[in-house]
Amino acid sequence: IPLSRTIRCSCIKISSRPVTPKSLDKLEIIPKSKSCEQVEVIATMKNGEKICLNPESKAIKKLLKNVTKER
Amino acid sequence: IPLSRTIRCSCIKISSRPVTPKSLDKLEIIPKSKSCEQVEVIATMKNGEKICLNPESKAIKKLLKNVTKER
Repeated sequence: IPLSRTIRCSCIKISSRPVTPKSLDKLEIIPKSKSCEQVEVIATMKNGEKICLNPESKAIKKLLKNVTKER
Repeated sequence: IPLSRTIRCSCIKISSRPVTPKSLDKLEIIPKSKSCEQVEVIATMKNGEKICLNPESKAIKKLLKNVTKER
């Protein structure tokens, strides 16, 4: 994933670390905009850490599906 | 959607207003936790307004899928 050249994107580095709904405090999805040409998925972990995830990866698409399924 | 009895949920009222990725500034998904028994989906609109969406509705599941597909 090339480093982002536009400084107004929040995500500079994309983590490929597996993330489960249980480890998540919050998931933020920022659609593409004039100030940032890429969709950004930012996970705030329960330990307070914030990591950027790859919106294109199957694992993250699956996470998005499962996180709303939590009964 | 019954009003939330636990005061620690962020969402008290759920909007059924249609939301498109273009009208969105940000989408926050908060998984179920000890402090709030329901998954919460909070949309921050471009006009700054924050609305709670129904994570169970087909339209919102579709939104979650499309928002990461934005090319």
